[in-house]
Amino acid sequence: MLAKNEFEMPHTITYYECDPTEKLSIDMLINLIMSVSEEQSRSLAVDTKVVAKIGGGWVITNYELQLTDLPAEGDHVILGTRTTAYNKYFAFREFWLKNETGDELVHINGMFVFMDFATRKMAAIPNAIIEPFSSKQVKKIPRIDRPQKLDTEAIDTKQDYRVRYFDIDSNQHVNNAHYFSWMLDALPADFLKHHQLTKMTIKFEREVRYGQTINSQVSQPQPDGDKLFTNHQIELDGDIHAQANCWWQ
Amino acid sequence: MLAKNEFEMPHTITYYECDPTEKLSIDMLINLIMSVSEEQSRSLAVDTKVVAKIGGGWVITNYELQLTDLPAEGDHVILGTRTTAYNKYFAFREFWLKNETGDELVHINGMFVFMDFATRKMAAIPNAIIEPFSSKQVKKIPRIDRPQKLDTEAIDTKQDYRVRYFDIDSNQHVNNAHYFSWMLDALPADFLKHHQLTKMTIKFEREVRYGQTINSQVSQPQPDGDKLFTNHQIELDGDIHAQANCWWQ
Repeated sequence: MLAKNEFEMPHTITYYECDPTEKLSIDMLINLIMSVSEEQSRSLAVDTKVVAKIGGGWVITNYELQLTDLPAEGDHVILGTRTTAYNKYFAFREFWLKNETGDELVHINGMFVFMDFATRKMAAIPNAIIEPFSSKQVKKIPRIDRPQKLDTEAIDTKQDYRVRYFDIDSNQHVNNAHYFSWMLDALPADFLKHHQLTKMTIKFEREVRYGQTINSQVSQPQPDGDKLFTNHQIELDGDIHAQANCWWQ
Repeated sequence: MLAKNEFEMPHTITYYECDPTEKLSIDMLINLIMSVSEEQSRSLAVDTKVVAKIGGGWVITNYELQLTDLPAEGDHVILGTRTTAYNKYFAFREFWLKNETGDELVHINGMFVFMDFATRKMAAIPNAIIEPFSSKQVKKIPRIDRPQKLDTEAIDTKQDYRVRYFDIDSNQHVNNAHYFSWMLDALPADFLKHHQLTKMTIKFEREVRYGQTINSQVSQPQPDGDKLFTNHQIELDGDIHAQANCWWQ
């Protein structure tokens, strides 16, 4: 039984959502969880177009992903989301992906802010776009683990990525899922094929635009307890546009 | 009522399947039609894994796309496919995308061959993998419009694309949809935003592999009747890996 602030939908994993490990790729996982939140918003008549009419849009600032496993092609899964809590400026949302027997394979926490289109700055969240979600108004918003910075001397690999036309979605912004593929693609294919992502923290700092060429930088994998740790950043003209930390097994 | 050689499935268009025109992107259209053929194959117990056990795989050689319109985010569509006809070496398959009221927005013809994994060459289609489809055995297979070549002096724009880890699907090959995005991304964003693709013919000649950098070449748009015509090719080390012709309005 779902609470009023929760929403779920079924999905069957397709071959093109999978990567060479034959499991759901991380960038498609992000697309899927964003589509469940978009579906919830649509069901409550506060989707992206409605929010845009109010003069702004939701912007994600941070994600924290916990992964025990990822589904494979043909797997029937349940995608879910909950609008957990919000205060004047921040909305905290959870996402999950469950397998057919109800085991949670992925849990994601995300922090959202409202950007005013006129000022291009963060603004107080308008009541009209948060009330329909039955989220809990709180003073203190839950914290999300933030990635630590990547020191210049720790950078092991750099790879350029030009923002392409099809990286832009129908909201005229670079789809956030591409940050994940730019970050992870900078790791060697052999590493990606033989390691499974178990945790990732990511912080989005600045937008990137069509035609810009970003530089994806990553450290050498280092042991951290029983996991391997990689540190990532997206740089453009000396500015850091996104940071992430990943743990692998 | 579907014939024995036909298969359909419903689909709802998501925001990440759309491009800046706010309609389904061409590369995602290709992913969707490939997933309906994969679903049909799975329903008949002759999916990619079963075919691989026989020692080979289906390879697409040509597509011909006819488009009257494309669906937008949230649209409920029907994806369909028909295994129309086959002979010793070639299998001809049709695909369609219909809107909720049953109008066909997209029709695609595709030609498939069977590649033997041991020889890496085309081989006679094994009975075991074609019979379950109730396709019609014919002497003369229907023809598919082939793209005309792009002359060197007609090349207007060249753009490099490195094959990335996430371009590889769970079958360990570059997902064919990426050829479409490499080809079309080489056109100016402004052209793509203000023109609608109405017809495309594409011929795949050679595979590309992870880490290779292909060059996507395109001619200046030229009037052709009441349409605009663009001519595309994918080059790697002097070899043409794919050719395409597009008509726009």
